[in-house]
Amino acid sequence: MLSKSQISFIKSLHQKKYRKENGIFIIEGIKSITEFINSSYQIHSIYYTSQYLPLLPQNTANIKLFEVNNAELEKISTLQTPQGILALIHTPLQQKLYPKNLQNSFSLVLDNVQDPGNFGTIIRTADWFGIRYIICSENTVEAYNPKTVQSTMGSLCRVNIVYTNLASFLSETTLPVFGALLNGNDIYKTDWGKEGLILLGNEGHGIGEELIEKITEPVTIPNFGKAESLNVAVSAAIFCSELRRNVKLN
Amino acid sequence: MLSKSQISFIKSLHQKKYRKENGIFIIEGIKSITEFINSSYQIHSIYYTSQYLPLLPQNTANIKLFEVNNAELEKISTLQTPQGILALIHTPLQQKLYPKNLQNSFSLVLDNVQDPGNFGTIIRTADWFGIRYIICSENTVEAYNPKTVQSTMGSLCRVNIVYTNLASFLSETTLPVFGALLNGNDIYKTDWGKEGLILLGNEGHGIGEELIEKITEPVTIPNFGKAESLNVAVSAAIFCSELRRNVKLN
Repeated sequence: MLSKSQISFIKSLHQKKYRKENGIFIIEGIKSITEFINSSYQIHSIYYTSQYLPLLPQNTANIKLFEVNNAELEKISTLQTPQGILALIHTPLQQKLYPKNLQNSFSLVLDNVQDPGNFGTIIRTADWFGIRYIICSENTVEAYNPKTVQSTMGSLCRVNIVYTNLASFLSETTLPVFGALLNGNDIYKTDWGKEGLILLGNEGHGIGEELIEKITEPVTIPNFGKAESLNVAVSAAIFCSELRRNVKLN
Repeated sequence: MLSKSQISFIKSLHQKKYRKENGIFIIEGIKSITEFINSSYQIHSIYYTSQYLPLLPQNTANIKLFEVNNAELEKISTLQTPQGILALIHTPLQQKLYPKNLQNSFSLVLDNVQDPGNFGTIIRTADWFGIRYIICSENTVEAYNPKTVQSTMGSLCRVNIVYTNLASFLSETTLPVFGALLNGNDIYKTDWGKEGLILLGNEGHGIGEELIEKITEPVTIPNFGKAESLNVAVSAAIFCSELRRNVKLN
């Protein structure tokens, strides 16, 4: 049985303001929760309906566990159809970005991606293709938005997300910057080298002008039909796929 | 000024039941509306706020036009942020599927895709890569769901969507069936030939068992990380991209 103040605390975390204030976000579903328990993230507490207790991993000794009924879960869940179990997770401290973390590998760079579902799908895709860093402009949608978290399907715990001033970051980096543009070179003929950044832009406006200047390799997915553009998560996926087709992982 | 009955009619079309009953669906935004006007779709009526009148194409002589104010548009819109103009479109008759339409080309086949945003993104991606047919199981989400329509960004008017019994369809076809599975052959080494079907499954459960038997070429996007699966719209995009990288369009 949850207290009124517990319920109102968890509900407050549906809003960005309170997630930021408390440094806590919500994840839901046994699969994601298990992955976070087994990751380096710190778990604040878990709220489970009875049938999910036996499914929890063993290493929950230091986690506060609360059994809830379906009515309580519905109150605290961010989902229309709650998944029987919900956890509160401590947000990690904003990571520092060391150039050496990005060397000899490829990272995604997102300029002002706004849709939480797109961002979550990009995180999931990055995880599939073994990309460890996503560097975001400060106005990119929040990684801990419940819709972002849900779309990552647990991958959020394995991909490092860093928010920074992209204009400064891209001015300082010595890595090649592959930019997803509509008038670049054919992606299927791109020479990726052994390291680099893949820069993708906002859903409606693409990559901001001051960042376009920083692109060293403009790259385009050829258009074989009449659509004017591709969804940004789709573009990200095709870039990751082409990269992995051509470049061996370290 | 719209009448109460006009408003309630348009609002009823937010629901699948009434879209089906009336054979009419809603699209929003000047770009999509212009593309539908210039397509073979029949437009029922257009509801515009004053600044959008000059942006409409010239060939609207036979279309009923209604000027509305922002408050009226908010009432009839399916969007949280209406885009200034909304149109009602007649749904085309269910298309018959002739084997010759699918010859010498590649089509997508969707088994029970449920998320309207995923479906819309797949339609948009198909349009980008010049794929003209998407054949859907009868339980696949509706193409005229407002979220599907919105995610297609106008591409819905250029891609043929056919709903059918996939078990029968795949039993009868003589085309190769490339199935997106987790344990198939490496997509980067696939020999696509010159025609075929690309079969993709449900978000949670993949391709149904009775359809898996119909796959002639199991294909897998290699996993370089730890995510368990890819979003279905992402998989569809990587299949389309690989196809176009290898196969010349007719």
